[in-house]
Amino acid sequence: MNPSSAAAAAAHFSPVSSTAFRDGLARLPGAVTVITTNGPAGAAGFTASAVCSVSDSPPTVLVCMNRSSFAHRFFAGNGVLCINVLSAAQQDLSALFANREVAMDQRFARTPWQACASGAPGLDGALVQLDGRIAATHEVGTHSIFIVELGEVRLADAGASHEGLAYFGRRYHALGASSPATQPA
Amino acid sequence: MNPSSAAAAAAHFSPVSSTAFRDGLARLPGAVTVITTNGPAGAAGFTASAVCSVSDSPPTVLVCMNRSSFAHRFFAGNGVLCINVLSAAQQDLSALFANREVAMDQRFARTPWQACASGAPGLDGALVQLDGRIAATHEVGTHSIFIVELGEVRLADAGASHEGLAYFGRRYHALGASSPATQPA
Repeated sequence: MNPSSAAAAAAHFSPVSSTAFRDGLARLPGAVTVITTNGPAGAAGFTASAVCSVSDSPPTVLVCMNRSSFAHRFFAGNGVLCINVLSAAQQDLSALFANREVAMDQRFARTPWQACASGAPGLDGALVQLDGRIAATHEVGTHSIFIVELGEVRLADAGASHEGLAYFGRRYHALGASSPATQPA
Repeated sequence: MNPSSAAAAAAHFSPVSSTAFRDGLARLPGAVTVITTNGPAGAAGFTASAVCSVSDSPPTVLVCMNRSSFAHRFFAGNGVLCINVLSAAQQDLSALFANREVAMDQRFARTPWQACASGAPGLDGALVQLDGRIAATHEVGTHSIFIVELGEVRLADAGASHEGLAYFGRRYHALGASSPATQPA
């Protein structure tokens, strides 16, 4: 940003309210994922939708996480994580890993998983497991942005559900072979 | 990340191939948006799916953009942008703003829009327009991550389409009132 445009933008700027922010973001479709880690700090997993692709060179994605979350220290301490992208058949896992009353060991006891290359739990049946190391962390407001370089990508077996799961308008939507609007441009 | 876990993670790490990365990311559902800007550097807009919520305090989102993109300098120069979240009725705009053969002025000439508070074009009919200023930029590999503080959130009129649009499995999916799998947990 050059100084003159930054100054012009800043002169008129006031932030939107939290309510307007949340109502607006409810209209941004997002993936439903469970982010997991394991290592010296211990095992943890939480449900997240703030995940996106960054760059394929190096192969990099990002995950946003509230620093005040109970699980945050496990991720910062282990330096590795796996993004488990849930299928339409896995809404129960979204609820399980978002439930603060269920201890971390109980979450993993109720969910079949296999360790990924990083050691993070890869949840059985996930559409894809995106496993890697935290290459950098940027702090923004209440959240950390974990920049994750991928070391392993595991696609679900052919026998598993391949319907996707999105969150939009404050509810889940299945993304199946029967629901595409058209082919891409 | 503590030094010992970083060392342990680094010892076994090698990045996945670009092909594995792209096949994996094709299974991550994403929004379909047109990111716009205007100001001293000129008007520009491009189609993007790498957008996510960061924090509601301050109200912040992020957008990832390839630095080698023709449009990059407009965003860096203006320091403001609007994320137009497309509805299921706006797939034509996704194609228009991804078409390198259509000049920027022609894109906006073919699309009804109104300037947002920042000056960035807000596209008529978008499910929501998330308008703000670029508060910080982080460079990761080939891409810039724009950290955007929101100054205006405009929801579509009641008369507009409220069906969402997602990209998953390399095609579009409509997210309508008829397609939810269940209510959220």
